[in-house]
Amino acid sequence: MTVTPVHLYGFFRSAAAFRVRIALKLKGIEVTHSYLALRKGEQRDPAYLKLNPQGLVPALILSNGEVLTQSLAIIDYLGGFLPRDKVKRAKVLAFSLAIAADTHPIQNLGVLERLRKMGVEEDKVTDFAREVNVTGLSACENMIDGKTKFCFGNKPSMADICLIPQLYNARRFGADVSQWTKLLKVEANALQFKAFADSQPQNQPDAV
Amino acid sequence: MTVTPVHLYGFFRSAAAFRVRIALKLKGIEVTHSYLALRKGEQRDPAYLKLNPQGLVPALILSNGEVLTQSLAIIDYLGGFLPRDKVKRAKVLAFSLAIAADTHPIQNLGVLERLRKMGVEEDKVTDFAREVNVTGLSACENMIDGKTKFCFGNKPSMADICLIPQLYNARRFGADVSQWTKLLKVEANALQFKAFADSQPQNQPDAV
Repeated sequence: MTVTPVHLYGFFRSAAAFRVRIALKLKGIEVTHSYLALRKGEQRDPAYLKLNPQGLVPALILSNGEVLTQSLAIIDYLGGFLPRDKVKRAKVLAFSLAIAADTHPIQNLGVLERLRKMGVEEDKVTDFAREVNVTGLSACENMIDGKTKFCFGNKPSMADICLIPQLYNARRFGADVSQWTKLLKVEANALQFKAFADSQPQNQPDAV
Repeated sequence: MTVTPVHLYGFFRSAAAFRVRIALKLKGIEVTHSYLALRKGEQRDPAYLKLNPQGLVPALILSNGEVLTQSLAIIDYLGGFLPRDKVKRAKVLAFSLAIAADTHPIQNLGVLERLRKMGVEEDKVTDFAREVNVTGLSACENMIDGKTKFCFGNKPSMADICLIPQLYNARRFGADVSQWTKLLKVEANALQFKAFADSQPQNQPDAV
């Protein structure tokens, strides 16, 4: 890392912001925070769209004014969360993307709002979000061997940083998480770390 | 890269497989191919699920038998598609993820099938897919300065490898792509490369 992060735009319940909180804390980097009220649409404010044209959290401001977006790009920037071995690195990235690309964005607020606007009833919207989590995390359960403390090895990687927030979402939408015994074992180990425990949504100042 | 790729599981119309075809060709790596009929559910065949527990394409087989999944993880493994400068690298990754995480998976076959099962009418399913593409690519248009031949600089990066397949999808769902003048300029430049042109869906043996 060349330029120091100084400020994070987030939201307590955003899984993507949750990932970046974990990564910053694991690196011991302290930043100031802004919390956007996503349900009020503050992420679509023109001033914020200049920082992040996607209108999503997180956005991380560096000390030179540069703005980094997309949680996995930020975690890559912070460094140290991927193995050096090329094949192992690809496996950690694949697990991370199974969550960050193929699960989380599909059950995100923006998509659920689209479904509601299309006239889909609220209980079906929740079913949709739960099923997306079940599909994604069931695949993840089969992508690890469950023999190590964390998903891949005995220290936290990008995979664990993606997993813990997604398990939070899965529970929120009513998924039966007990089916994922390997993932739950990793979660129990991770939550013994302050970086994972303190980053949880309910421990953020904007939590409601 | 340490171990050579030998075989690719794909599908002509999969944007994720399209990305990997481009990257392999840009690297000059020749592989053999299997084409899965996604609409017939061949990706959920138990033998394929052993290779890729997500039941998605692509899956890339290496000469030592290792299986790599997730297009961005594979492109990262192949190497050479991200800038060395840390901040520039983060910007290319963010653009790539705006497509590969926040756009493509939401308009993918699996999600559209879920909507149909929920009773959403076919024209609304297409509207949904088109709007997801418009939202994603409109943000991407604002993430590049349009002053270089490719998205970021004058040679292809992961960003361009993600962009070209997504423009194909956007057109397929009826989006007005003419609004994205910077993206179209990049596309015109990219399609002058055999790697991009030959990888297009209509040029694959399984195209229908």
